[in-house]
Amino acid sequence: MTNSTLFQVEMEVRDYECDMEGIVNNAVYMNYLEHARHGFIRSKGLNFGELIRQGIQLVVIRIEADYLLPLRSGDRFIVTASAEKVSKLRFRFTQEIRRLPDAKSMLKAQVFGTSLNAEGKPKYFDVIEKLFE
Amino acid sequence: MTNSTLFQVEMEVRDYECDMEGIVNNAVYMNYLEHARHGFIRSKGLNFGELIRQGIQLVVIRIEADYLLPLRSGDRFIVTASAEKVSKLRFRFTQEIRRLPDAKSMLKAQVFGTSLNAEGKPKYFDVIEKLFE
Amino acid sequence: MTNSTLFQVEMEVRDYECDMEGIVNNAVYMNYLEHARHGFIRSKGLNFGELIRQGIQLVVIRIEADYLLPLRSGDRFIVTASAEKVSKLRFRFTQEIRRLPDAKSMLKAQVFGTSLNAEGKPKYFDVIEKLFE
Amino acid sequence: MTNSTLFQVEMEVRDYECDMEGIVNNAVYMNYLEHARHGFIRSKGLNFGELIRQGIQLVVIRIEADYLLPLRSGDRFIVTASAEKVSKLRFRFTQEIRRLPDAKSMLKAQVFGTSLNAEGKPKYFDVIEKLFE
Repeated sequence: MTNSTLFQVEMEVRDYECDMEGIVNNAVYMNYLEHARHGFIRSKGLNFGELIRQGIQLVVIRIEADYLLPLRSGDRFIVTASAEKVSKLRFRFTQEIRRLPDAKSMLKAQVFGTSLNAEGKPKYFDVIEKLFE
Repeated sequence: MTNSTLFQVEMEVRDYECDMEGIVNNAVYMNYLEHARHGFIRSKGLNFGELIRQGIQLVVIRIEADYLLPLRSGDRFIVTASAEKVSKLRFRFTQEIRRLPDAKSMLKAQVFGTSLNAEGKPKYFDVIEKLFE
Repeated sequence: MTNSTLFQVEMEVRDYECDMEGIVNNAVYMNYLEHARHGFIRSKGLNFGELIRQGIQLVVIRIEADYLLPLRSGDRFIVTASAEKVSKLRFRFTQEIRRLPDAKSMLKAQVFGTSLNAEGKPKYFDVIEKLFE
Repeated sequence: MTNSTLFQVEMEVRDYECDMEGIVNNAVYMNYLEHARHGFIRSKGLNFGELIRQGIQLVVIRIEADYLLPLRSGDRFIVTASAEKVSKLRFRFTQEIRRLPDAKSMLKAQVFGTSLNAEGKPKYFDVIEKLFE
Protein backbone atom coordinates (compact mmCIF):
# COMPACT_ATOMS: atom_id res chain seq x y z
CA MET A 1 0.00 0.00 0.00
CA THR A 2 1.10 3.58 0.61
CA ASN A 3 2.91 2.64 3.77
CA SER A 4 6.65 2.97 3.72
CA THR A 5 8.95 0.23 4.89
CA LEU A 6 9.78 0.24 8.59
CA PHE A 7 12.90 2.07 9.75
CA GLN A 8 14.49 1.53 13.14
CA VAL A 9 17.41 2.93 15.09
CA GLU A 10 18.91 1.64 18.32
CA MET A 11 19.61 4.12 21.11
CA GLU A 12 20.51 4.15 24.78
CA VAL A 13 19.25 6.34 27.62
CA ARG A 14 21.83 8.92 28.68
CA ASP A 15 21.79 9.87 32.36
CA TYR A 16 21.31 13.57 31.64
CA GLU A 17 18.02 12.68 29.95
CA CYS A 18 16.59 11.41 33.26
CA ASP A 19 14.78 13.74 35.62
CA MET A 20 14.13 13.96 39.35
CA GLU A 21 11.91 10.86 39.18
CA GLY A 22 14.88 8.88 37.80
CA ILE A 23 13.08 8.28 34.53
CA VAL A 24 13.46 9.78 31.08
CA ASN A 25 11.74 13.17 30.93
CA ASN A 26 8.63 13.34 28.71
CA ALA A 27 10.07 15.84 26.30
CA VAL A 28 13.14 13.68 25.66
CA TYR A 29 11.00 11.01 24.00
CA MET A 30 10.15 13.66 21.41
CA ASN A 31 13.87 14.00 20.76
CA TYR A 32 14.15 10.23 20.31
CA LEU A 33 11.20 10.21 17.90
CA GLU A 34 12.67 13.10 15.88
CA HIS A 35 16.05 11.41 15.70
CA ALA A 36 14.38 8.29 14.27
CA ARG A 37 12.35 10.33 11.78
CA HIS A 38 15.46 12.11 10.53
CA GLY A 39 17.19 8.74 10.22
CA PHE A 40 14.18 7.44 8.32
CA ILE A 41 14.36 10.46 5.99
CA ARG A 42 18.06 9.79 5.36
CA SER A 43 17.30 6.12 4.69
CA LYS A 44 15.09 7.37 1.83
CA GLY A 45 17.97 9.29 0.28
CA LEU A 46 16.88 12.66 1.65
CA ASN A 47 18.56 14.80 4.30
CA PHE A 48 16.71 17.06 6.69
CA GLY A 49 19.42 19.76 6.82
CA GLU A 50 19.88 19.62 3.04
CA LEU A 51 16.15 20.05 2.45
CA ILE A 52 16.17 23.23 4.58
CA ARG A 53 18.97 24.64 2.43
CA GLN A 54 16.80 23.91 -0.65
CA GLY A 55 13.93 25.85 0.89
CA ILE A 56 11.90 22.80 1.89
CA GLN A 57 10.89 22.61 5.53
CA LEU A 58 9.31 19.46 6.89
CA VAL A 59 7.37 20.46 9.98
CA VAL A 60 5.36 18.65 12.60
CA ILE A 61 1.76 19.80 12.86
CA ARG A 62 0.38 17.30 15.40
CA ILE A 63 1.71 14.71 17.80
CA GLU A 64 -0.28 12.03 19.58
CA ALA A 65 1.87 10.04 21.99
CA ASP A 66 0.93 7.33 24.47
CA TYR A 67 3.44 6.92 27.29
CA LEU A 68 3.13 3.24 28.23
CA LEU A 69 6.15 2.56 30.44
CA PRO A 70 9.09 4.75 31.46
CA LEU A 71 12.63 4.31 30.18
CA ARG A 72 15.31 4.45 32.87
CA SER A 73 19.02 5.17 33.15
CA GLY A 74 21.01 2.62 31.17
CA ASP A 75 18.08 1.24 29.14
CA ARG A 76 18.74 0.40 25.53
CA PHE A 77 15.86 0.67 23.10
CA ILE A 78 14.85 0.91 19.46
CA VAL A 79 12.79 3.66 17.88
CA THR A 80 10.83 2.77 14.76
CA ALA A 81 9.33 4.97 12.07
CA SER A 82 7.22 4.44 8.98
CA ALA A 83 5.41 7.06 6.92
CA GLU A 84 2.29 7.36 4.83
CA LYS A 85 0.45 10.18 3.07
CA VAL A 86 -2.85 11.28 4.51
CA SER A 87 -3.56 14.00 1.91
CA LYS A 88 -1.68 15.79 -0.86
CA LEU A 89 0.14 18.02 1.61
CA ARG A 90 0.04 15.97 4.80
CA PHE A 91 1.72 12.83 5.97
CA ARG A 92 1.83 10.73 9.10
CA PHE A 93 4.70 8.95 10.81
CA THR A 94 3.80 5.95 12.93
CA GLN A 95 6.44 5.44 15.60
CA GLU A 96 7.15 3.19 18.52
CA ILE A 97 9.81 2.91 21.21
CA ARG A 98 10.61 -0.63 22.33
CA ARG A 99 12.97 -1.44 25.17
CA LEU A 100 15.77 -3.95 24.63
CA PRO A 101 16.18 -6.82 25.05
CA ASP A 102 12.56 -7.57 26.04
CA ALA A 103 10.99 -5.58 23.15
CA LYS A 104 8.39 -4.20 25.55
CA SER A 105 6.54 -1.22 24.07
CA MET A 106 7.34 1.95 26.02
CA LEU A 107 5.72 4.58 23.80
CA LYS A 108 3.57 4.71 20.68
CA ALA A 109 3.11 7.85 18.64
CA GLN A 110 1.54 9.27 15.53
CA VAL A 111 3.31 12.33 14.21
CA PHE A 112 1.61 14.38 11.50
CA GLY A 113 3.63 16.64 9.25
CA THR A 114 3.52 18.84 6.22
CA SER A 115 5.97 20.62 3.93
CA LEU A 116 6.50 24.38 3.85
CA ASN A 117 8.41 26.58 1.44
CA ALA A 118 11.12 28.98 2.62
CA GLU A 119 8.43 31.58 3.42
CA GLY A 120 6.71 29.11 5.72
CA LYS A 121 3.69 28.52 3.44
CA PRO A 122 2.38 24.95 2.95
CA LYS A 123 3.62 23.73 -0.41
CA TYR A 124 3.80 20.41 -2.21
CA PHE A 125 7.25 19.19 -3.32
CA ASP A 126 7.70 16.11 -5.54
CA VAL A 127 10.80 15.05 -3.66
CA ILE A 128 8.75 14.28 -0.55
CA GLU A 129 7.18 11.30 -2.34
CA LYS A 130 10.41 9.40 -1.71
CA LEU A 131 9.37 9.13 1.93
CA PHE A 132 6.43 6.89 1.08
CA GLU A 133 8.20 4.34 -1.09
CA MET B 1 -17.97 22.22 36.83
CA THR B 2 -14.93 20.12 37.64
CA ASN B 3 -12.62 22.39 35.65
CA SER B 4 -9.89 24.12 37.62
CA THR B 5 -9.21 27.80 37.32
CA LEU B 6 -6.81 28.81 34.55
CA PHE B 7 -3.12 29.14 35.36
CA GLN B 8 -0.64 30.96 33.15
CA VAL B 9 3.07 31.66 33.13
CA GLU B 10 5.00 34.04 30.90
CA MET B 11 8.18 32.78 29.23
CA GLU B 12 10.62 33.82 26.53
CA VAL B 13 12.32 31.75 23.82
CA ARG B 14 15.98 31.15 24.59
CA ASP B 15 18.26 30.91 21.57
CA TYR B 16 19.56 27.45 22.51
CA GLU B 17 15.98 26.18 22.21
CA CYS B 18 15.95 26.99 18.48
CA ASP B 19 17.09 24.45 15.93
CA MET B 20 18.61 24.49 12.45
CA GLU B 21 15.34 25.87 11.03
CA GLY B 22 15.66 28.88 13.35
CA ILE B 23 12.48 27.92 15.18
CA VAL B 24 11.87 26.34 18.56
CA ASN B 25 12.42 22.58 18.38
CA ASN B 26 9.27 20.44 18.77
CA ALA B 27 10.42 18.75 21.95
CA VAL B 28 11.07 22.09 23.66
CA TYR B 29 7.35 22.91 23.60
CA MET B 30 6.90 19.86 25.83
CA ASN B 31 9.33 21.46 28.27
CA TYR B 32 7.30 24.67 28.19
CA LEU B 33 4.08 22.74 28.83
CA GLU B 34 5.63 20.81 31.72
CA HIS B 35 6.98 24.00 33.27
CA ALA B 36 3.46 25.48 33.20
CA ARG B 37 1.92 22.30 34.65
CA HIS B 38 4.40 22.29 37.52
CA GLY B 39 3.65 25.98 38.12
CA PHE B 40 -0.06 25.15 38.06
CA ILE B 41 0.52 22.38 40.62
CA ARG B 42 2.41 24.82 42.87
CA SER B 43 -0.41 27.35 42.50
CA LYS B 44 -2.66 24.69 44.06
CA GLY B 45 -0.40 24.39 47.09
CA LEU B 46 1.33 21.21 45.91
CA ASN B 47 4.93 20.75 44.81
CA PHE B 48 6.04 18.27 42.19
CA GLY B 49 9.39 17.46 43.82
CA GLU B 50 7.79 17.26 47.28
CA LEU B 51 5.17 14.81 46.02
CA ILE B 52 7.92 12.52 44.70
CA ARG B 53 9.56 12.51 48.12
CA GLN B 54 6.16 11.49 49.59
CA GLY B 55 5.98 8.57 47.17
CA ILE B 56 3.43 10.18 44.84
CA GLN B 57 4.41 10.35 41.20
CA LEU B 58 2.32 12.34 38.76
CA VAL B 59 3.02 10.94 35.32
CA VAL B 60 1.97 11.78 31.80
CA ILE B 61 0.23 8.94 29.98
CA ARG B 62 -0.81 10.67 26.76
CA ILE B 63 -0.09 13.91 24.94
CA GLU B 64 -2.04 15.36 22.02
CA ALA B 65 -0.45 18.50 20.69
CA ASP B 66 -1.32 20.66 17.69
CA TYR B 67 1.56 22.76 16.44
CA LEU B 68 -0.14 25.81 14.92
CA LEU B 69 2.66 28.32 14.40
CA PRO B 70 6.35 28.23 15.31
CA LEU B 71 7.92 30.29 18.06
CA ARG B 72 11.18 32.03 17.10
CA SER B 73 14.23 33.47 18.79
CA GLY B 74 13.28 36.33 21.07
CA ASP B 75 9.52 35.61 21.15
CA ARG B 76 7.76 36.09 24.45
CA PHE B 77 4.71 33.94 25.14
CA ILE B 78 2.38 32.66 27.82
CA VAL B 79 1.65 29.02 28.59
CA THR B 80 -1.71 28.23 30.15
CA ALA B 81 -2.89 25.17 32.08
CA SER B 82 -6.13 24.02 33.61
CA ALA B 83 -6.98 20.54 34.88
CA GLU B 84 -10.00 18.30 35.21
CA LYS B 85 -10.63 14.71 36.26
CA VAL B 86 -11.60 12.26 33.56
CA SER B 87 -11.91 9.22 35.88
CA LYS B 88 -11.01 8.30 39.44
CA LEU B 89 -7.34 7.81 38.56
CA ARG B 90 -6.95 9.95 35.46
CA PHE B 91 -6.90 13.65 34.81
CA ARG B 92 -6.40 15.93 31.85
CA PHE B 93 -4.55 19.20 31.50
CA THR B 94 -5.74 21.55 28.78
CA GLN B 95 -2.89 23.80 27.70
CA GLU B 96 -2.16 26.49 25.20
CA ILE B 97 0.83 28.56 24.15
CA ARG B 98 0.05 32.11 23.03
CA ARG B 99 2.63 34.50 21.62
CA LEU B 100 2.96 37.98 23.05
CA PRO B 101 1.92 40.65 22.46
CA ASP B 102 -0.49 39.48 19.71
CA ALA B 103 -1.94 36.56 21.75
CA LYS B 104 -1.80 34.39 18.63
CA SER B 105 -2.22 30.70 19.46
CA MET B 106 0.99 28.78 18.68
CA LEU B 107 0.18 25.37 20.18
CA LYS B 108 -2.76 23.64 21.82
CA ALA B 109 -2.40 20.47 23.83
CA GLN B 110 -4.25 17.98 25.95
CA VAL B 111 -2.04 16.18 28.43
CA PHE B 112 -3.43 13.15 30.24
CA GLY B 113 -1.93 12.01 33.50
CA THR B 114 -2.33 9.64 36.40
CA SER B 115 -0.81 9.13 39.85
CA LEU B 116 1.52 6.28 40.75
CA ASN B 117 2.83 5.11 44.10
CA ALA B 118 6.56 4.75 44.76
CA GLU B 119 6.50 1.27 43.18
CA GLY B 120 5.11 2.74 39.98
CA LYS B 121 1.61 1.28 40.36
CA PRO B 122 -1.44 3.46 39.59
CA LYS B 123 -2.90 4.61 42.90
CA TYR B 124 -5.42 7.18 44.02
CA PHE B 125 -4.25 9.87 46.47
CA ASP B 126 -6.68 12.33 48.10
CA VAL B 127 -4.19 15.15 47.86
CA ILE B 128 -4.50 15.19 44.07
CA GLU B 129 -8.04 16.54 44.38
CA LYS B 130 -6.53 19.94 45.11
CA LEU B 131 -5.62 20.18 41.44
CA PHE B 132 -9.25 20.31 40.39
CA GLU B 133 -10.46 23.05 42.71
CA MET C 1 38.78 50.62 30.96
CA THR C 2 37.87 48.15 28.23
CA ASN C 3 35.38 46.37 30.46
CA SER C 4 31.77 46.60 29.43
CA THR C 5 29.00 47.51 31.83
CA LEU C 6 27.48 44.61 33.74
CA PHE C 7 24.39 42.91 32.31
CA GLN C 8 22.11 40.65 34.32
CA VAL C 9 19.02 38.56 33.70
CA GLU C 10 16.79 36.86 36.26
CA MET C 11 15.81 33.24 35.69
CA GLU C 12 14.20 30.35 37.55
CA VAL C 13 15.10 26.67 37.61
CA ARG C 14 12.64 24.57 35.60
CA ASP C 15 12.04 21.06 36.90
CA TYR C 16 13.03 19.41 33.60
CA GLU C 17 16.48 20.96 34.04
CA CYS C 18 17.09 18.90 37.19
CA ASP C 19 18.62 15.45 37.00
CA MET C 20 18.54 12.24 39.02
CA GLU C 21 20.42 13.97 41.86
CA GLY C 22 17.60 16.53 42.10
CA ILE C 23 19.94 19.34 41.13
CA VAL C 24 20.40 21.28 37.91
CA ASN C 25 22.44 19.25 35.44
CA ASN C 26 25.94 20.61 34.68
CA ALA C 27 25.26 21.25 31.02
CA VAL C 28 22.18 23.34 31.80
CA TYR C 29 24.34 26.01 33.46
CA MET C 30 25.94 26.48 30.05
CA ASN C 31 22.47 27.18 28.67
CA TYR C 32 21.90 29.76 31.40
CA LEU C 33 25.24 31.41 30.64
CA GLU C 34 24.51 31.50 26.91
CA HIS C 35 21.07 32.99 27.50
CA ALA C 36 22.66 35.79 29.54
CA ARG C 37 25.36 36.39 26.91
CA HIS C 38 22.76 36.70 24.15
CA GLY C 39 20.77 39.09 26.37
CA PHE C 40 23.97 41.06 26.94
CA ILE C 41 24.55 41.20 23.18
CA ARG C 42 21.00 42.48 22.62
CA SER C 43 21.50 45.08 25.35
CA LYS C 44 24.34 46.42 23.20
CA GLY C 45 22.04 46.84 20.21
CA LEU C 46 23.19 43.66 18.46
CA ASN C 47 21.23 40.45 17.89
CA PHE C 48 22.79 37.02 17.77
CA GLY C 49 20.40 35.61 15.13
CA GLU C 50 20.67 38.78 13.05
CA LEU C 51 24.48 38.62 13.11
CA ILE C 52 24.35 35.06 11.75
CA ARG C 53 22.19 36.23 8.85
CA GLN C 54 24.84 38.92 8.15
CA GLY C 55 27.53 36.25 8.01
CA ILE C 56 29.01 37.03 11.42
CA GLN C 57 29.25 34.12 13.80
CA LEU C 58 30.21 34.70 17.41
CA VAL C 59 31.60 31.43 18.72
CA VAL C 60 32.85 30.16 22.02
CA ILE C 61 36.43 28.90 21.96
CA ARG C 62 37.01 28.19 25.66
CA ILE C 63 34.98 27.90 28.83
CA GLU C 64 36.30 27.82 32.38
CA ALA C 65 33.54 27.26 34.90
CA ASP C 66 33.67 26.76 38.67
CA TYR C 67 30.64 24.98 40.07
CA LEU C 68 30.38 26.34 43.62
CA LEU C 69 26.93 25.25 44.81
CA PRO C 70 24.08 23.46 43.04
CA LEU C 71 20.83 25.11 41.98
CA ARG C 72 17.70 23.15 42.84
CA SER C 73 14.11 22.89 41.68
CA GLY C 74 12.30 26.18 42.24
CA ASP C 75 15.42 28.30 42.80
CA ARG C 76 15.41 31.77 41.32
CA PHE C 77 18.74 33.28 40.32
CA ILE C 78 20.45 35.96 38.28
CA VAL C 79 23.05 35.42 35.60
CA THR C 80 25.48 38.25 34.96
CA ALA C 81 27.70 38.98 31.98
CA SER C 82 30.31 41.55 31.09
CA ALA C 83 32.76 41.50 28.19
CA GLU C 84 36.25 42.69 27.39
CA LYS C 85 38.67 42.28 24.50
CA VAL C 86 41.72 40.14 25.07
CA SER C 87 43.20 40.57 21.56
CA LYS C 88 42.09 41.95 18.20
CA LEU C 89 40.04 38.84 17.44
CA ARG C 90 39.31 37.46 20.87
CA PHE C 91 37.12 38.54 23.74
CA ARG C 92 36.18 37.23 27.15
CA PHE C 93 32.86 37.19 28.98
CA THR C 94 33.02 37.15 32.77
CA GLN C 95 29.88 35.56 34.14
CA GLU C 96 28.37 34.58 37.45
CA ILE C 97 25.23 32.86 38.65
CA ARG C 98 23.86 34.11 41.98
CA ARG C 99 20.92 32.54 43.77
CA LEU C 100 18.04 34.71 44.92
CA PRO C 101 17.27 36.10 47.39
CA ASP C 102 20.53 35.35 49.24
CA ALA C 103 22.82 36.38 46.33
CA LYS C 104 25.02 33.37 47.07
CA SER C 105 27.43 32.63 44.22
CA MET C 106 26.59 29.28 42.59
CA LEU C 107 28.88 29.37 39.55
CA LYS C 108 31.60 31.58 38.13
CA ALA C 109 32.77 31.36 34.56
CA GLN C 110 35.07 32.88 32.00
CA VAL C 111 33.90 32.33 28.44
CA PHE C 112 36.30 33.15 25.60
CA GLY C 113 35.00 33.83 22.12
CA THR C 114 35.93 34.99 18.67
CA SER C 115 34.17 36.06 15.49
CA LEU C 116 34.05 33.98 12.30
CA ASN C 117 32.87 34.83 8.81
CA ALA C 118 30.24 32.75 7.03
CA GLU C 119 32.96 30.31 5.89
CA GLY C 120 33.96 29.73 9.50
CA LYS C 121 37.28 31.61 9.30
CA PRO C 122 38.30 33.94 12.16
CA LYS C 123 37.63 37.49 11.00
CA TYR C 124 37.48 40.90 12.64
CA PHE C 125 34.21 42.86 12.33
CA ASP C 126 33.90 46.49 13.49
CA VAL C 127 30.41 45.93 14.77
CA ILE C 128 31.72 43.66 17.54
CA GLU C 129 33.29 46.68 19.24
CA LYS C 130 29.83 47.60 20.50
CA LEU C 131 30.09 44.74 22.96
CA PHE C 132 32.92 46.43 24.85
CA GLU C 133 31.35 49.84 25.33
CA MET D 1 51.22 6.13 37.20
CA THR D 2 47.88 7.03 38.80
CA ASN D 3 46.21 7.54 35.45
CA SER D 4 43.33 5.25 34.63
CA THR D 5 43.09 3.39 31.36
CA LEU D 6 41.41 5.29 28.53
CA PHE D 7 37.67 4.82 27.99
CA GLN D 8 35.89 5.78 24.80
CA VAL D 9 32.35 5.78 23.49
CA GLU D 10 31.15 6.39 19.95
CA MET D 11 28.27 8.79 19.39
CA GLU D 12 26.52 10.62 16.57
CA VAL D 13 25.20 14.18 16.39
CA ARG D 14 21.42 14.30 16.58
CA ASP D 15 19.76 17.12 14.62
CA TYR D 16 17.94 18.49 17.67
CA GLU D 17 21.36 19.11 19.24
CA CYS D 18 22.22 21.64 16.52
CA ASP D 19 21.34 25.29 16.89
CA MET D 20 20.57 28.23 14.64
CA GLU D 21 24.17 28.24 13.38
CA GLY D 22 23.72 24.64 12.17
CA ILE D 23 26.35 23.40 14.62
CA VAL D 24 26.13 21.54 17.89
CA ASN D 25 25.23 23.94 20.71
CA ASN D 26 28.00 24.56 23.27
CA ALA D 27 26.08 23.09 26.19
CA VAL D 28 25.46 19.83 24.33
CA TYR D 29 29.18 19.02 24.38
CA MET D 30 28.86 18.96 28.16
CA ASN D 31 26.17 16.31 27.75
CA TYR D 32 28.50 14.29 25.53
CA LEU D 33 31.31 14.58 28.07
CA GLU D 34 29.03 13.52 30.94
CA HIS D 35 27.74 10.55 28.97
CA ALA D 36 31.33 9.38 28.43
CA ARG D 37 32.22 9.92 32.10
CA HIS D 38 29.25 7.85 33.23
CA GLY D 39 30.23 5.15 30.74
CA PHE D 40 33.76 5.30 32.09
CA ILE D 41 32.41 4.92 35.64
CA ARG D 42 30.37 1.87 34.57
CA SER D 43 33.45 0.40 32.88
CA LYS D 44 35.07 0.47 36.34
CA GLY D 45 32.24 -1.58 37.84
CA LEU D 46 30.48 1.41 39.38
CA ASN D 47 27.15 2.96 38.43
CA PHE D 48 26.32 6.61 38.76
CA GLY D 49 22.63 6.11 39.65
CA GLU D 50 23.49 3.28 42.07
CA LEU D 51 26.07 5.47 43.84
CA ILE D 52 23.39 8.15 44.40
CA ARG D 53 21.14 5.55 46.03
CA GLN D 54 24.06 4.64 48.32
CA GLY D 55 24.41 8.26 49.35
CA ILE D 56 27.51 8.94 47.27
CA GLN D 57 27.29 11.87 44.90
CA LEU D 58 30.03 12.47 42.36
CA VAL D 59 29.87 16.11 41.41
CA VAL D 60 31.68 18.35 38.98
CA ILE D 61 33.44 21.29 40.59
CA ARG D 62 35.27 22.77 37.60
CA ILE D 63 35.26 22.41 33.84
CA GLU D 64 37.86 23.74 31.43
CA ALA D 65 36.90 23.12 27.82
CA ASP D 66 38.56 24.19 24.59
CA TYR D 67 36.21 24.27 21.61
CA LEU D 68 38.49 23.54 18.65
CA LEU D 69 36.11 22.79 15.79
CA PRO D 70 32.32 22.48 15.63
CA LEU D 71 30.46 19.21 15.20
CA ARG D 72 27.67 19.32 12.63
CA SER D 73 24.49 17.44 11.82
CA GLY D 74 25.26 13.82 10.97
CA ASP D 75 28.83 13.81 12.34
CA ARG D 76 29.95 10.69 14.15
CA PHE D 77 32.56 11.04 16.86
CA ILE D 78 34.18 9.43 19.86
CA VAL D 79 34.37 10.85 23.35
CA THR D 80 37.24 9.69 25.54
CA ALA D 81 37.70 9.80 29.29
CA SER D 82 40.44 8.92 31.73
CA ALA D 83 40.68 9.82 35.40
CA GLU D 84 43.33 10.57 37.97
CA LYS D 85 43.37 11.75 41.56
CA VAL D 86 44.62 15.27 42.25
CA SER D 87 44.15 15.14 46.03
CA LYS D 88 42.48 12.89 48.60
CA LEU D 89 39.02 14.26 47.77
CA ARG D 90 39.48 15.54 44.26
CA PHE D 91 39.93 13.92 40.89
CA ARG D 92 40.26 15.03 37.30
CA PHE D 93 38.84 13.58 34.11
CA THR D 94 40.78 14.28 30.94
CA GLN D 95 38.44 14.13 27.97
CA GLU D 96 38.50 14.64 24.24
CA ILE D 97 35.99 14.60 21.40
CA ARG D 98 37.34 13.36 18.08
CA ARG D 99 35.34 13.36 14.87
CA LEU D 100 35.10 10.20 12.80
CA PRO D 101 36.49 9.01 10.54
CA ASP D 102 39.25 11.65 10.40
CA ALA D 103 39.97 11.58 14.19
CA LYS D 104 40.25 15.37 14.17
CA SER D 105 40.12 16.82 17.66
CA MET D 106 36.96 18.90 18.15
CA LEU D 107 37.08 19.58 21.88
CA LYS D 108 39.46 18.97 24.77
CA ALA D 109 38.38 19.24 28.38
CA GLN D 110 39.53 18.81 31.94
CA VAL D 111 36.69 18.08 34.33
CA PHE D 112 37.39 18.25 38.06
CA GLY D 113 35.16 16.44 40.52
CA THR D 114 34.75 15.45 44.12
CA SER D 115 32.55 13.13 46.16
CA LEU D 116 29.79 14.30 48.51
CA ASN D 117 27.73 12.42 51.06
CA ALA D 118 23.92 12.48 51.01
CA GLU D 119 23.94 15.77 52.93
CA GLY D 120 26.08 17.35 50.24
CA LYS D 121 29.29 17.53 52.32
CA PRO D 122 32.63 16.58 50.71
CA LYS D 123 33.50 13.09 51.92
CA TYR D 124 36.01 10.41 50.96
CA PHE D 125 34.66 7.00 49.93
CA ASP D 126 36.95 4.01 49.34
CA VAL D 127 34.86 2.80 46.44
CA ILE D 128 35.89 5.82 44.35
CA GLU D 129 39.43 4.42 44.14
CA LYS D 130 38.15 1.99 41.51
CA LEU D 131 38.02 4.90 39.08
CA PHE D 132 41.77 5.29 39.10
CA GLU D 133 42.76 1.70 38.43
